[in-house]
Amino acid sequence: MKKLRRSARIVDLTQQFLHQPNTLISLSYFAERYHSAKSSISEDIDIIDEIFQEEGIGQLLTLAGAAGGVKFIPSIPKEEAKTEMLRICQALSSVERLLPGGYLYMSDILGNPKLLKQLGRMFASAFSNQEIDTIITVETKGIPLAHATASYLNVPVVIVRRDSRVTEGSVVTINYVSGSTKRIQTMSLARRALKEGSNVLVIDDFMKAGGTIKGMIGLLQEFNAHLKGIGVFVESGETEERLIKDYISLARLTEVNEREKLVNVELGNFF
Amino acid sequence: MKKLRRSARIVDLTQQFLHQPNTLISLSYFAERYHSAKSSISEDIDIIDEIFQEEGIGQLLTLAGAAGGVKFIPSIPKEEAKTEMLRICQALSSVERLLPGGYLYMSDILGNPKLLKQLGRMFASAFSNQEIDTIITVETKGIPLAHATASYLNVPVVIVRRDSRVTEGSVVTINYVSGSTKRIQTMSLARRALKEGSNVLVIDDFMKAGGTIKGMIGLLQEFNAHLKGIGVFVESGETEERLIKDYISLARLTEVNEREKLVNVELGNFF
Repeated sequence: MKKLRRSARIVDLTQQFLHQPNTLISLSYFAERYHSAKSSISEDIDIIDEIFQEEGIGQLLTLAGAAGGVKFIPSIPKEEAKTEMLRICQALSSVERLLPGGYLYMSDILGNPKLLKQLGRMFASAFSNQEIDTIITVETKGIPLAHATASYLNVPVVIVRRDSRVTEGSVVTINYVSGSTKRIQTMSLARRALKEGSNVLVIDDFMKAGGTIKGMIGLLQEFNAHLKGIGVFVESGETEERLIKDYISLARLTEVNEREKLVNVELGNFF
Repeated sequence: MKKLRRSARIVDLTQQFLHQPNTLISLSYFAERYHSAKSSISEDIDIIDEIFQEEGIGQLLTLAGAAGGVKFIPSIPKEEAKTEMLRICQALSSVERLLPGGYLYMSDILGNPKLLKQLGRMFASAFSNQEIDTIITVETKGIPLAHATASYLNVPVVIVRRDSRVTEGSVVTINYVSGSTKRIQTMSLARRALKEGSNVLVIDDFMKAGGTIKGMIGLLQEFNAHLKGIGVFVESGETEERLIKDYISLARLTEVNEREKLVNVELGNFF
């Protein structure tokens, strides 16, 4: 790269941090890239950090020493998250979304790249103080959420399958009881997909009694993995007994009445 | 927002463009946000655009007039894409990835957020000159790729299901013949998931004869949708007759021999 003036360096630095969150980049790398002194780059980084913090985009963490560098930790201001989620709750509180069995149609929200980025930022903010190696989710609708979160936490996503016709080599399969329907279900995960002893964050789109997530926790035990957190997009508030306790929800379905055509979604326990 | 000096404005502008690709933002919005003259902001934008183009991140398109503004069109330099894909091809050319039926284990690559971003940039670059409304994929492994592409093209993703136990309201279901196994399969898409007349990009992870993608094209016809492009991550080069013709592949599985333990993956037709 040719030698750049400050304003141009700042463009490139900003895009590098945003493109690679949670990645330690050494000052020497930048110094070489821009043919500039580390002291100048430190000043650039201070300018970027100030705006990132003011705008609630995140912060730039500087680690001193030979193995040091700078790392962008993304976040979202609580107020921005709240405003965004209130809008989503309103969009979800629509009778037209009612599906048989007390489910809500949410595929439009979970297919929207702008909303997904914001939801990913929320989960990444909520769990940024945990040492997480891997995000786990179950097919199908949890996958976009898990990946949106992963792109901010910079960790891989592992997908648990409900299907047995899976071409992923040897798998670990468990049976679990669905919390709401009490039926026995199956889920499986490829043996090679998850390293033994991983620190895992569970992400899913919807939780009723929590049977599916309890199933995933059981599966994690087969891999000697450590559960570091659970994040769900919408939890159903109508459940009498919840099978899991520690989790973060972004929204809560407080009323769903097919006969009376009533649906109400409120902010979850994250707020 | 308080009044900012140029370097700080540039940080914020850069992050706004990167966070919202393919979105027209008016100069008046920025002028108000920064309490600055539009002429100053135009200069900022020129600085950003120059670096974006030099580094192959994309370009800032300025549209004049009352309804005008600035739009970030992401891309990836062909050389960077090629280097990245050669590395991925090498990682894929491993006997340990061989799965029964001539499939390759690719979940680690499709679970890696950094690689996914790059693959998404490649597809977004390849189809940036098409008017695309919606990306369609089939569960499960195509989903992360489709969403990575969608986040650069700023369009929603619609997921075709192979499963009939789907809680998405009324669905359109079709049968199709798998091109390689010649078995009859089923796929379905929620009626409300895709608007009539949409311009659609098909994204999938793996293509053998192309039966699944041909099935998706059949499904699109049920929605009067227009096929605008097909992008696959890896195509199998061993297929005698391909059911579809116009597509872009990033990689090509040229040799897979379970008995001789040979696997070879090369660059696809995109390069």
